[in-house]
Amino acid sequence: MKTRVGILGASGYGGAELLRRFLHHPNVEVSAIGSRQYEGKGIAACWPQLAGLYKNLLFQTNDDVIKNCDVVFCATPHGETAPLVKKAIDAGRKVIDLSADFRLPPELYETWYGHPHPHPELYDLARFGLVELHRDELKDSRLIGNPGCNSSTAILALAPLAANNLLGQDIIVNIVTGASGAGRSPSQGFHYTELNEGARPYNVAGKHRHTVEVEMTLGRIMSMGRRLQTHADFDMPVVTFNPHLVPMSRGIIATCYTRPETSVALTDKVLLELYTTFYKNDPMIVVQEDLPQSKSVWGSDRAIVTARYDSRTGHIIAFATIDNMGKGAAGQAVQNFNVMHGLEETLGLMLGGIWP
Amino acid sequence: MKTRVGILGASGYGGAELLRRFLHHPNVEVSAIGSRQYEGKGIAACWPQLAGLYKNLLFQTNDDVIKNCDVVFCATPHGETAPLVKKAIDAGRKVIDLSADFRLPPELYETWYGHPHPHPELYDLARFGLVELHRDELKDSRLIGNPGCNSSTAILALAPLAANNLLGQDIIVNIVTGASGAGRSPSQGFHYTELNEGARPYNVAGKHRHTVEVEMTLGRIMSMGRRLQTHADFDMPVVTFNPHLVPMSRGIIATCYTRPETSVALTDKVLLELYTTFYKNDPMIVVQEDLPQSKSVWGSDRAIVTARYDSRTGHIIAFATIDNMGKGAAGQAVQNFNVMHGLEETLGLMLGGIWP
Amino acid sequence: MKTRVGILGASGYGGAELLRRFLHHPNVEVSAIGSRQYEGKGIAACWPQLAGLYKNLLFQTNDDVIKNCDVVFCATPHGETAPLVKKAIDAGRKVIDLSADFRLPPELYETWYGHPHPHPELYDLARFGLVELHRDELKDSRLIGNPGCNSSTAILALAPLAANNLLGQDIIVNIVTGASGAGRSPSQGFHYTELNEGARPYNVAGKHRHTVEVEMTLGRIMSMGRRLQTHADFDMPVVTFNPHLVPMSRGIIATCYTRPETSVALTDKVLLELYTTFYKNDPMIVVQEDLPQSKSVWGSDRAIVTARYDSRTGHIIAFATIDNMGKGAAGQAVQNFNVMHGLEETLGLMLGGIWP
Amino acid sequence: MKTRVGILGASGYGGAELLRRFLHHPNVEVSAIGSRQYEGKGIAACWPQLAGLYKNLLFQTNDDVIKNCDVVFCATPHGETAPLVKKAIDAGRKVIDLSADFRLPPELYETWYGHPHPHPELYDLARFGLVELHRDELKDSRLIGNPGCNSSTAILALAPLAANNLLGQDIIVNIVTGASGAGRSPSQGFHYTELNEGARPYNVAGKHRHTVEVEMTLGRIMSMGRRLQTHADFDMPVVTFNPHLVPMSRGIIATCYTRPETSVALTDKVLLELYTTFYKNDPMIVVQEDLPQSKSVWGSDRAIVTARYDSRTGHIIAFATIDNMGKGAAGQAVQNFNVMHGLEETLGLMLGGIWP
Repeated sequence: MKTRVGILGASGYGGAELLRRFLHHPNVEVSAIGSRQYEGKGIAACWPQLAGLYKNLLFQTNDDVIKNCDVVFCATPHGETAPLVKKAIDAGRKVIDLSADFRLPPELYETWYGHPHPHPELYDLARFGLVELHRDELKDSRLIGNPGCNSSTAILALAPLAANNLLGQDIIVNIVTGASGAGRSPSQGFHYTELNEGARPYNVAGKHRHTVEVEMTLGRIMSMGRRLQTHADFDMPVVTFNPHLVPMSRGIIATCYTRPETSVALTDKVLLELYTTFYKNDPMIVVQEDLPQSKSVWGSDRAIVTARYDSRTGHIIAFATIDNMGKGAAGQAVQNFNVMHGLEETLGLMLGGIWP
Repeated sequence: MKTRVGILGASGYGGAELLRRFLHHPNVEVSAIGSRQYEGKGIAACWPQLAGLYKNLLFQTNDDVIKNCDVVFCATPHGETAPLVKKAIDAGRKVIDLSADFRLPPELYETWYGHPHPHPELYDLARFGLVELHRDELKDSRLIGNPGCNSSTAILALAPLAANNLLGQDIIVNIVTGASGAGRSPSQGFHYTELNEGARPYNVAGKHRHTVEVEMTLGRIMSMGRRLQTHADFDMPVVTFNPHLVPMSRGIIATCYTRPETSVALTDKVLLELYTTFYKNDPMIVVQEDLPQSKSVWGSDRAIVTARYDSRTGHIIAFATIDNMGKGAAGQAVQNFNVMHGLEETLGLMLGGIWP
Repeated sequence: MKTRVGILGASGYGGAELLRRFLHHPNVEVSAIGSRQYEGKGIAACWPQLAGLYKNLLFQTNDDVIKNCDVVFCATPHGETAPLVKKAIDAGRKVIDLSADFRLPPELYETWYGHPHPHPELYDLARFGLVELHRDELKDSRLIGNPGCNSSTAILALAPLAANNLLGQDIIVNIVTGASGAGRSPSQGFHYTELNEGARPYNVAGKHRHTVEVEMTLGRIMSMGRRLQTHADFDMPVVTFNPHLVPMSRGIIATCYTRPETSVALTDKVLLELYTTFYKNDPMIVVQEDLPQSKSVWGSDRAIVTARYDSRTGHIIAFATIDNMGKGAAGQAVQNFNVMHGLEETLGLMLGGIWP
Repeated sequence: MKTRVGILGASGYGGAELLRRFLHHPNVEVSAIGSRQYEGKGIAACWPQLAGLYKNLLFQTNDDVIKNCDVVFCATPHGETAPLVKKAIDAGRKVIDLSADFRLPPELYETWYGHPHPHPELYDLARFGLVELHRDELKDSRLIGNPGCNSSTAILALAPLAANNLLGQDIIVNIVTGASGAGRSPSQGFHYTELNEGARPYNVAGKHRHTVEVEMTLGRIMSMGRRLQTHADFDMPVVTFNPHLVPMSRGIIATCYTRPETSVALTDKVLLELYTTFYKNDPMIVVQEDLPQSKSVWGSDRAIVTARYDSRTGHIIAFATIDNMGKGAAGQAVQNFNVMHGLEETLGLMLGGIWP
């Protein structure tokens, strides 16, 4: 029997990508989709690429979506989502939240978002939904906070170093990202003729809120090792985190720098083995020797990671790339759904990317 | 039991797109892949986006591919393919040829390609693989010539007009196309910095070889109606065919102009009904009222068609859009495979597009 | 002595391009720039690429701009501009209007814009500012309506045919255009992730308002020959005009189709000679044998034209390409300024394009 | 009287950009252009955007170019250039070399390029052509080695820190760059459909040869302060240098990280003042508070720099952006020419960028 899934914010990019994956998911029936703007209309009004593929679905109000499903995916904006999660949990639904509202403990949330968490009482239910590190506690959870796209990329690059005590005092994350993470609503900086043929840093020097997700997760790994618990104690390192926007629709590359103080004789080969071992049971992670390119994961849900040792300077340079809409959003969410329900972890996921 | 499929030219874009589709095809096992350049290597050496997904496959010689499968897909270049088809047919294989080598009767081939057809004796076996018009004769065929990407687009836009006697004396096809149709080998005009931020016409004024595929198919429709036979007689109209290259990886829009001499009172609505009726049993064709955008079919195998009547000038303007790698190549080929084998026509096809 | 120039709408793309040209214009001092949004601020607040280059200029109100200059360039939106032109003319300024407000006779304006022209009394002063065809009447004019970008392209492609009686009954203009013509304000269809990797037709079948500019100018040529007068009588043909948006910032290609009824033995060579002769005294027009690509005029003010004869179908296919911001807007306007003031026609213009 | 300039490698992008600048340079006459591929042909055969603008010039052999000019610009490939420089110097010409052949002392050249310098005897004549730091010694020099595009960007970002003793032990340079730096010859990784919609690191971890240019120049600053001499002694720091290619034609952003050990109370404001002071006499450098975007310098010759202090981690993050074809190649070369000849430093340079 299929699980009845509802999608809040189905008129956003995250929603579209969930719908694309559920076309192929054997255990899911999309039973309700929410959108204020398209309420009462069919899929094609919003998503011409899906015209006719969800024939009996009309966009509904959020309340109706919550009513008409068993599991709610929230692809709604940060800040607007927590009250919807509250309603869904109160109605007995399971929730997978793609927004930032349930990623952080309430005290960290307040620090980074500038106001108290609207529903701190729900945080006890929440699990941090990076499957590769939190898999064990996600099964049978009721509320999963899907991690951010940039932070997921950086964490996947750095986790094997954290687990092997190879993080130095300085941890630098340099992000190159495409434009779809900013969503579908037009804005000046994402107007075609403003973004095309231009690259730019933004929210640098500790201003980007994904910074804390990286710090928190690295801290957990250093305290707990490979299997993380959202609600155990840990200490956090600080991370220098700088994102750059470049003219492409999809893709993130995290290039991470650290200089470990270690007696291990580091080489590229040693690092590759260490990464391979770390991710050996993770079907969505590809460890490879070649430097990764974001095109290799375009349209798909896998992450590619590798690392290099710069023997001239002593830096380890760790790389990861994902599609921000895949492993960075909808793919991660579906993977969370699968683990939450005890299903094969890769069901409905896009294993192969699309090239060119 | 699965059909064992071999792909010649699996290191080209058409090959990659076949491999992407066969990941999802329940009746196909890819048993062999061919590439001179990558012989002996695994998939990831050529296609990082598919790393690890075809674990036991190594690229082989063309001869070995033909030996190790039941159905051969030729994604090899024009001109090089006919001899491979000959070998495959002699070996008892069925063939779906994505190249141009078996689209035209030998006499037309010679006119447009400038030399005699290398294997005219095989043309009796060939069927023109535009499923929507040739479906009946494709079942149980042994050799299908997949139509060109630009011609497929134009034919799908114009077929309902041809079938309804609404083509005037002048038939103009204006094509806008992305770059992947030119393949993966680097060349000056497709070098990133040469193509980016520039649009250009090419092979205009009757020089593009897809012209004749449009003329031939419109001629067949005018002679035979809805269900075409590759080997029946027909007369051909002439078509003015002008393609333009624009800076995007995928997508074709055909904008077709004709001024019918008709007593029918034409309106947009009349045309829409006529198109809807014509394609009512075709699962891969979406007839819509809105003007189509190529993004709506990006990464997928459907075509979108519509038409407008310009009452000021008496022109019908017929539009179609496809992904040149989907309905224009690999998707069409898989659809042909399904029909050839009496399977559900949409198996393994990408119904939903990827947006953004 | 330099002419004091004011620019209304200097915070739009047209304004930026005027400012870029006036950096190099020996006879112009930019004395005032207008923008509601940036009033009181310097250039860099709006245009980082010009930071520090117009050191003493602050954005002002429209009224102050009109006060503080001798010649007003209107780079303001259609509809908002006519009242500003009225004020400028009343204040004794000369005006070059890049908007659509003074391109058409009031009766045509009403037909195509759906409401009466707000200042029909000014139209007697107006001249249609396509220099190559209206040059003689532009000298000493007081109000020039700069033609549209798409219409300029189509007119330059078709004018030699009109002048040589080579237009058939059907005249079809197929436009491929980049995104900057839509301006700097964000909107859904021009959001990066919506436009990237997609092409689409828009305002087809007689709905685009540039259609009438083409019809009007072709009609004038057929009535008056090479030297046009805005206020003489003429008859108009109808034109089928279909624009397509493609993912690039700049550039337009007009591909125009007509089948002449003529006894002239047409060839590509005959057409090339005819075009060369027609434009032999026009420094901004390049007639060439090769098919034009929009990249060749990127960032510059010239137009490239050529034509082909399709002997199979009897169609002439006429091509032109311009940069919509150059010959299609700011470059045309500066050229008009030069002619208006009896200066060398190419002063301040970008003769060379930027590649890559 | 104008200086007669010859351009070797005029069929490459660097050559095209030199030609675009010399259209506007009052003291230069381009007297000869070299290209093996286009020998005997006019400009338009190679550069349609410059058709007709250099009417009497035909591409010549390198020997003829050297003969027919006073100053030679080498826009020829690394490795092929040194022998041409030798010929030019022997013939009494001054040389500005855009290749890498005269940037490094012979011993460093051998280390980084893997073979002995072919003409070490000429290095005594060479000056490192980053004007802002070497200006004094460039006047009256005979051979200037234009610095690399990536290294120029990084050096401009880091120089004020080096001069103020604010470089910590770790110096990390993260580069984001467009594609034109790779030149006009097609190659797999720069094929449109391979590069579009993808970002990728390359030559990381001390493999990129621009690394040493940064190390060398930072070392000189730390030894000599603001006014550098190519042939004085100095010590070098090591730099971690990682470039990333992104899908755009032009533009580089260097994001540089260092954690100084200093008693100075650092803030963004302090850094901004320090940068402003450092570059106060440099007309091609814009110091600004806002984060820079590469679009702001697209098509122009200026650099934009700024810096941030991350108080959470103690890192200074220094940013610079240039157009790799401008300040990173042709613009730098023309600036060097101006200084070499005692001319106004900005003659012929593109001060304003082109937007959009």
